[in-house]
Amino acid sequence: MTFNILFRSFQTLTYVGTYKKIKNRPLRLYCAAVLGTGIVAYNQYQSKAEMKEIMQLKNYMANPITPVEQLEQNKDDMKTQMELLIMRIQAEFCRALEKEEDKEAKFTVDRWTRKEGGGGITCVLQDGRVFEKAGVNISVVSGKLPPAAIQQMRSRGKNLQNAELPFFAAGVSAVIHPRNPMVPTIHFNYRYFEVQDKDGVQWWFGGGTDLTPYYLNEDDALHFHLTLKHACDDHDSSYYARFKKWCDDYFYIPHRGERRGVGGIFFDDLDTPNQQAAFAFVTSCAEAVIPSYVPLVKKHKDDAYGYHERQWQLLRRGRYVEFNLIYDRGTKFGLHTPEARYESILMSLPLNAKWEYMHQVQPNSEEEKLLKILKEPKDWLQIEDKKRSNA
Amino acid sequence: MTFNILFRSFQTLTYVGTYKKIKNRPLRLYCAAVLGTGIVAYNQYQSKAEMKEIMQLKNYMANPITPVEQLEQNKDDMKTQMELLIMRIQAEFCRALEKEEDKEAKFTVDRWTRKEGGGGITCVLQDGRVFEKAGVNISVVSGKLPPAAIQQMRSRGKNLQNAELPFFAAGVSAVIHPRNPMVPTIHFNYRYFEVQDKDGVQWWFGGGTDLTPYYLNEDDALHFHLTLKHACDDHDSSYYARFKKWCDDYFYIPHRGERRGVGGIFFDDLDTPNQQAAFAFVTSCAEAVIPSYVPLVKKHKDDAYGYHERQWQLLRRGRYVEFNLIYDRGTKFGLHTPEARYESILMSLPLNAKWEYMHQVQPNSEEEKLLKILKEPKDWLQIEDKKRSNA
Repeated sequence: MTFNILFRSFQTLTYVGTYKKIKNRPLRLYCAAVLGTGIVAYNQYQSKAEMKEIMQLKNYMANPITPVEQLEQNKDDMKTQMELLIMRIQAEFCRALEKEEDKEAKFTVDRWTRKEGGGGITCVLQDGRVFEKAGVNISVVSGKLPPAAIQQMRSRGKNLQNAELPFFAAGVSAVIHPRNPMVPTIHFNYRYFEVQDKDGVQWWFGGGTDLTPYYLNEDDALHFHLTLKHACDDHDSSYYARFKKWCDDYFYIPHRGERRGVGGIFFDDLDTPNQQAAFAFVTSCAEAVIPSYVPLVKKHKDDAYGYHERQWQLLRRGRYVEFNLIYDRGTKFGLHTPEARYESILMSLPLNAKWEYMHQVQPNSEEEKLLKILKEPKDWLQIEDKKRSNA
Repeated sequence: MTFNILFRSFQTLTYVGTYKKIKNRPLRLYCAAVLGTGIVAYNQYQSKAEMKEIMQLKNYMANPITPVEQLEQNKDDMKTQMELLIMRIQAEFCRALEKEEDKEAKFTVDRWTRKEGGGGITCVLQDGRVFEKAGVNISVVSGKLPPAAIQQMRSRGKNLQNAELPFFAAGVSAVIHPRNPMVPTIHFNYRYFEVQDKDGVQWWFGGGTDLTPYYLNEDDALHFHLTLKHACDDHDSSYYARFKKWCDDYFYIPHRGERRGVGGIFFDDLDTPNQQAAFAFVTSCAEAVIPSYVPLVKKHKDDAYGYHERQWQLLRRGRYVEFNLIYDRGTKFGLHTPEARYESILMSLPLNAKWEYMHQVQPNSEEEKLLKILKEPKDWLQIEDKKRSNA
């Protein structure tokens, strides 16, 4: 796409250069008209070709929710840019996961629409050899926000009128529960929100990526955090530290006094420094998912494990369910939305989970090692810095 | 106990009768003193003997939370009456379930205390042959209610000051998840609440018993509802119908548009016609648990079943988890209470649960038969009336 834009700019300059050499005024006017029409026609042709190219080459999981013509007409609108980003991220991630699976294990694709406006594409791979349950969902919805939702946004500091307001939301969200307890679970979600009130449109981005291991492998945690840090550092050197802390604070299960996993990054209400820069940051984060996670799948998917490790994994998945159903804002918001597609919202729940009364881990066990980290999150990169300075 | 009271009253009247015959005044005074001391000493002896009798004969699962001396001194206080009722119900139910199990499967007993005041006794039988997870919990707690809890009570219509108020709560709560999918899950909870504000003490009872089958057996549902109806009818002929509807409305999973099970009875804020009558009603309900449920365990615990039925049971247990973690007021209230013993609150969760994306039941299957009832609750006893009138 970037190449095309450069190429077209270069062509236009060439045309304009030729045109400037023409001294005869009527001929100049005629040529200007032809040139103008030509550029418009060419651009239209190009954009259709590009759209076609996007659709074919990027191999989306299904047709976009917004009609292609509408996307094409509003190419520069952030709504379009975000929809195309989440379509691409969904497809790339699904394909990358399928590569780790047995050949016959493929994502099922459900494209659904909402009466009120918009819809989504839910991709699920269930009961595979590598992935017990993997869900990758996008949704592009619009309509009127109910007053309760507005109230919640206002309580978060959004300056919005207390009325039913038109909104638009587009996001990608995934939870991957692998079968092997040595492979961590990953969750990520990137979303764009617009609300219109009498003062105009307010927009913001939110999202994050976080890792939930069943057995702690420090190298894996480090690799994961480092990949996210690189994605952040390209945009703002303060982002990683801020969003790492936000993640540790958000994925917290108060009644157990422990985090869901080893964290990652999490942010909400991001509307600085400007829309394109914020979008570029979100794009970097979303593009960091595959390099942060797929190497861990490759590395551990054939690790040896037994009944004991499986039981621990199932108990930890029970904690995952507790967080998602009791505390997760997205799940609650989703389930309380009228006409919610609950199957897509609850796709984050594991295939199997377990609750034992008063389960106790053995002292000095691998299970206890994980619990300690969940109770007191680490600054992974400081450890890396220390390693470096010691080397 | 009733007999003892009558006997003691009779004795006292005899003494008083003899005393009235004495004409000599100093002797009368002396006799009065002896008589008074004697009655007090006798009463103390009797009540200790009674308490000992209660403790031994009723075979509680552990010592009561409130010191025995304190219970003894406040025998007529509803707080004492309720604590003794829930201790008895817990022990009777645990023993009745153990009788259905293999000999070696016994309830483990955890007696715990709270810093702020009170505590509980949590009895759990896990991974038995008949019961996959059975939890029977009592708690007797007191302290100051946080303003959020008061606010919630006010929103339910309680006329309470908006301040931190002293409270007392005692209740028994049980969830039994059997292994065989042909045996339904039962849940019951009976509780007594006191809050003190400037105008005095407000008290009320709440509770209910409900059944969650995995496969619908109409005879079982009928037996269950009929047993509850009998318990209600002894107290108020309007109770069963009102509390059956309340139960259907309460155990509802809005995002799925289905009830958790085939219902039972549920009520809250019961403070009529008077404290003793309300207590008598709650006692009848709690005493109806064993006859409503244990016959179903006996009947089905050795029924044949296979992989398919087990998978369906696990999926339904996922729905049970959804209700308890997202919607159940008791669980939410419990987990948000500071110093909550979450292991006792979450003992209601099944040992194993499952979530499949887009699970579909086969048309005209036994699974579909259950779903239909969960979507449209039946008036079980009307069916019984029809059967009778046809017979």
